[in-house]
Amino acid sequence: MSGRRFDVTAIGNAIVDVIAAADDALLVTHGLRKDAMSLIDAAAAERLYGIMGPGREMSGGSAANTVAGIAALGGRAAYIGKVADDQLGDVFMHDIRAIGVTCDTPPLTEGLSTARCLIFVTPDAHRTMQTFLGATTQLGPEDVNMDYITASRVVYLEGYLWDQPRAKKAMRDAAVRAQAAGVKVSLTLSDAFCVDRFREEFLDLVQHHVDILFANETEILSLYQAATFDEALQRVRPHCEVAALTRSERGSVVLSGEEVHVIDAVPGVDVVDTTGAGDAYAAGFLYAYTRGCDPATCGRLGGVMAAEVIGHYGARPEADVKALAAEVLSGRTTRGGPSR
Amino acid sequence: MSGRRFDVTAIGNAIVDVIAAADDALLVTHGLRKDAMSLIDAAAAERLYGIMGPGREMSGGSAANTVAGIAALGGRAAYIGKVADDQLGDVFMHDIRAIGVTCDTPPLTEGLSTARCLIFVTPDAHRTMQTFLGATTQLGPEDVNMDYITASRVVYLEGYLWDQPRAKKAMRDAAVRAQAAGVKVSLTLSDAFCVDRFREEFLDLVQHHVDILFANETEILSLYQAATFDEALQRVRPHCEVAALTRSERGSVVLSGEEVHVIDAVPGVDVVDTTGAGDAYAAGFLYAYTRGCDPATCGRLGGVMAAEVIGHYGARPEADVKALAAEVLSGRTTRGGPSR
Repeated sequence: MSGRRFDVTAIGNAIVDVIAAADDALLVTHGLRKDAMSLIDAAAAERLYGIMGPGREMSGGSAANTVAGIAALGGRAAYIGKVADDQLGDVFMHDIRAIGVTCDTPPLTEGLSTARCLIFVTPDAHRTMQTFLGATTQLGPEDVNMDYITASRVVYLEGYLWDQPRAKKAMRDAAVRAQAAGVKVSLTLSDAFCVDRFREEFLDLVQHHVDILFANETEILSLYQAATFDEALQRVRPHCEVAALTRSERGSVVLSGEEVHVIDAVPGVDVVDTTGAGDAYAAGFLYAYTRGCDPATCGRLGGVMAAEVIGHYGARPEADVKALAAEVLSGRTTRGGPSR
Repeated sequence: MSGRRFDVTAIGNAIVDVIAAADDALLVTHGLRKDAMSLIDAAAAERLYGIMGPGREMSGGSAANTVAGIAALGGRAAYIGKVADDQLGDVFMHDIRAIGVTCDTPPLTEGLSTARCLIFVTPDAHRTMQTFLGATTQLGPEDVNMDYITASRVVYLEGYLWDQPRAKKAMRDAAVRAQAAGVKVSLTLSDAFCVDRFREEFLDLVQHHVDILFANETEILSLYQAATFDEALQRVRPHCEVAALTRSERGSVVLSGEEVHVIDAVPGVDVVDTTGAGDAYAAGFLYAYTRGCDPATCGRLGGVMAAEVIGHYGARPEADVKALAAEVLSGRTTRGGPSR
């Protein structure tokens, strides 16, 4: 895998999180479903942003969080995602480039504005999320820079995109081109409801185009309509070269050919906010994977990255993750895989 | 495996549990280490029994609990274990035969009395255990009825016996004879400290004589001096035909050739007393195994049996476990392997 320009190129929904404090009365007044993530249209996004208190903007988006994590670890990453030519678009592009990710997807110049997720944080630390997809719905095959795809070790695809027909085409094209160029194709299932809507297509994708699958427990159960985790585990084994199944406090199970690894979660983490845990796991896993690490080490670094992200607000790492990775990759620690 | 007289013949320490209520002051007065299991001599056993309140005798012993569980499930089992020709010996032999287990090891007629475990239950429901091994230390090769061994599908050996040189010889003889007769040899590691004392011998046994290994997490970590569960898992995989690794509330991991199954614990169990959980797991597992069930089903029935036993005081099942087994074996339930 030497000589490739990028470790990972990702394709995903480019979203800016807008985080502000709010009291419960505000949620009630504006009919916001507490603790939930709801999709909203442009008018609602403008209106709700108007009633929001002073906020903090943080670039988000699942696959974008993953490549940000890979870059934070010292990996080389590119990102393909659609913002609009507006201020939040500028924020998104600034942040992802500032961390060292190559990103030059042309912004949308008319029509929809940049996707944003308005996050109302109540005094109990719960989050109520209102997502406007905006410009990201316009991502299409023409946005996929095939030079990046073929110059990567791994292409990482976000399942959320499957809801948009043109984005779906973009992902399929990228997967086919990657396979032809000997680039590993990686997919995160993203969301159990999304899997439910497109089960047959995802199954086909997983069986025929995906080398490295990421899924959490509800997603993999949904994919195979399995009653138990073990049943889903047995089903997915022959379908992918590598599968990393995350289980929250139960850690993860990593499948790789004949190998099966049961990786315990990092113990003793004071969980503040689980948003981005799966994205961070994928970052750690793929960083280790593209360095030729064995599957257990990939899973351990995934677990360590997830633990870092859930220990604070925000979906991107804040600690010195290079130091954490050095510990895991050198075998100096069993973080991410200790038993009790 | 048809035509064998017994599904399982077990060899273990034949112990009667004596359970009585006690207050904390009594523990302090007599210097009993609360919550611990301590080995005591005959004089201490007599003295402590004298100060015990009115008690309830229940046959115990790890492997004996397992064959009792197999018999409760409807399996055919034999037990080889040494009691003395005294009243507690009568209790032990009565109970194990009453549940349908074949047991005719000649009792010790002079010297040591029947092994007992004095269990002081304080008002907080904690147990303080004082174990006198007595007659069971005299189990020797002459007690192993080789006709039972060769007439079984599986021989089940209790690691605790390894502390006694003659019992160790008895186990080794049984294992060698079983192998020659095409009988599967199964071992439970029993105790991490015991594993620590005889690591090399256990490793040799596991690699060369054991087909089906049972171990909890601390035991398997001790056997391989592994830092993580996954490390121990990878080490044991090539050593045994089948290994069932139990992890308390994390369920179990079952290895069988190329297969690896991650079986979740039965959820929602109100844990009263975990004594005998591993014994009951082995009972469920071996009952299913000797009926030709696949490894995942064996692990699920193990989990269901463990859940039954930890839901009440006492190490042997009380519920209608035949009905539970019928559910698991028919696939009508995912009990023992449900996801959340």
